[in-house]
Amino acid sequence: VNAPAGSTAPAELVHINGRDATQVSALDRGLHYGEGLFETIACTHGTPRLLELHLKRLGRGCARLGFTPPPVEELAAEVHAFAAPRERAVVKLIVTRGVAQARGYARGKDETVTRITLRYPWPAEDATLAHKGVRVRIGALRLGENPALAGLKHCNRLEQVLARAEWSDPAIAEALLYSSSGALVSGTMSNVFLVLDSKLVTPRLHRCGVAGVMRELLLTLAPGAGIAAEERDLTAADLARASEIFLTNALIGIRPVRELGGHTLAVGGVTRALQALVAPRLNLSSTPAAGGRR
Amino acid sequence: VNAPAGSTAPAELVHINGRDATQVSALDRGLHYGEGLFETIACTHGTPRLLELHLKRLGRGCARLGFTPPPVEELAAEVHAFAAPRERAVVKLIVTRGVAQARGYARGKDETVTRITLRYPWPAEDATLAHKGVRVRIGALRLGENPALAGLKHCNRLEQVLARAEWSDPAIAEALLYSSSGALVSGTMSNVFLVLDSKLVTPRLHRCGVAGVMRELLLTLAPGAGIAAEERDLTAADLARASEIFLTNALIGIRPVRELGGHTLAVGGVTRALQALVAPRLNLSSTPAAGGRR
Repeated sequence: VNAPAGSTAPAELVHINGRDATQVSALDRGLHYGEGLFETIACTHGTPRLLELHLKRLGRGCARLGFTPPPVEELAAEVHAFAAPRERAVVKLIVTRGVAQARGYARGKDETVTRITLRYPWPAEDATLAHKGVRVRIGALRLGENPALAGLKHCNRLEQVLARAEWSDPAIAEALLYSSSGALVSGTMSNVFLVLDSKLVTPRLHRCGVAGVMRELLLTLAPGAGIAAEERDLTAADLARASEIFLTNALIGIRPVRELGGHTLAVGGVTRALQALVAPRLNLSSTPAAGGRR
Repeated sequence: VNAPAGSTAPAELVHINGRDATQVSALDRGLHYGEGLFETIACTHGTPRLLELHLKRLGRGCARLGFTPPPVEELAAEVHAFAAPRERAVVKLIVTRGVAQARGYARGKDETVTRITLRYPWPAEDATLAHKGVRVRIGALRLGENPALAGLKHCNRLEQVLARAEWSDPAIAEALLYSSSGALVSGTMSNVFLVLDSKLVTPRLHRCGVAGVMRELLLTLAPGAGIAAEERDLTAADLARASEIFLTNALIGIRPVRELGGHTLAVGGVTRALQALVAPRLNLSSTPAAGGRR
């Protein structure tokens, strides 16, 4: 444990640029502007899950924000080393623009990225949620739309923080959010999929939202299992008529929504089929209920 | 100089929570989510300018983001101490949500804000710009709209960083930005005022943008000098028919726009009158040309 003295923060291991450390420069542009990207990587049986997808997304994000990314081999080796000693853990990787060379928004020519790697304990949670589903609310906050940032898992996350602060009932797992123009986007920390007319659909993320790795995996795998899947502009009306709804992220995998804004939903066959389909990729046995087993 | 070794960063003095320090916890929510607010305070003749407006805005921002703000007297004393030894300097104050107690967007109950105070040298700049005006472009990036964040000087600034990265010509001082729905908002680091039909107008900032302290000062002072001033929804058509345009922020005061997107503008009488009006508040003599004098 090398968290800063006096904090109750739960990270149990932190590296900065590959070295054991707990602090970053007060001049880092990640701190001043949220100018960074992150990945939250689920690790099970000592191994990071979907690491290739995480590192590819990080690389794409670096390209879009104009960062020179850290070497992929180095990142992969570090994440593997963080994962190895634990049966289950969460490894968070943050890459910022680095220490500012001057005050102000303009970037310097010689800034080099700061890499922060943190290991957290696996979240304590009801192991049966993957089977029985979760209760979800509709968020009041509407996400701003900016194609330049859409899809990225960047560090400008005040909207998600404010949306998450709208409720404190622990029985509610997530809130679904619309954008300023009324498009359905995602949860605060998950992507959302609907089954509409027997087809699997998820919101297009060209104006806002984070393109999650589990979302990507599902869009890739579903057609091979005979389930047509597509990204689409979706609205509240689509949400209301969906026959199945589920959430995805790297940690929870696929989690059925059994109640949305007070209305009960059945956990359906498409959701179950997809849970079985991705289980091998998540180092889970193929029965969904085992997804939360310790 | 206590900037981290190996960096070329220009801050010449840094305090964290009132103590001489250069680094912050890698678990700070300011770093993870940009969950913070900042103030950029111009200091001249050893004294911070418009400090009361800065600290009031910071307090309002803390209230909106749900932070318990640091004591105002403590902040004021620290900024005064930072300003005192220098003829001119820029003091930046950052207040973040503090060190995270857990991973994820949900806030802990006992997080205490982190306060970072930095002193930078006054920017090197052509001293005649306040008199002769600046050249400005129209930015391609459009700002996302979110009323929950509008007006705040928060640390989610990727949009401004990307907009500033659109040009590198040092002869261009600023870019004016529209929002996703086409409303004129501001520059990347300044507010904008237009003279329309002999009236002073500036964009309403209810959907996005930072409500600057110089903007606030002008809206307060102008009517007393016989200049009607109002916040209004503005578009590209308003910009095209403006008889005068100027930019404001805490450092530059009022800076006339003499060229916008290749079109020449005259520096007009309203701009000059307002420069003279605010000069005493900025510790400047009343002739605008003296605004940049060393």
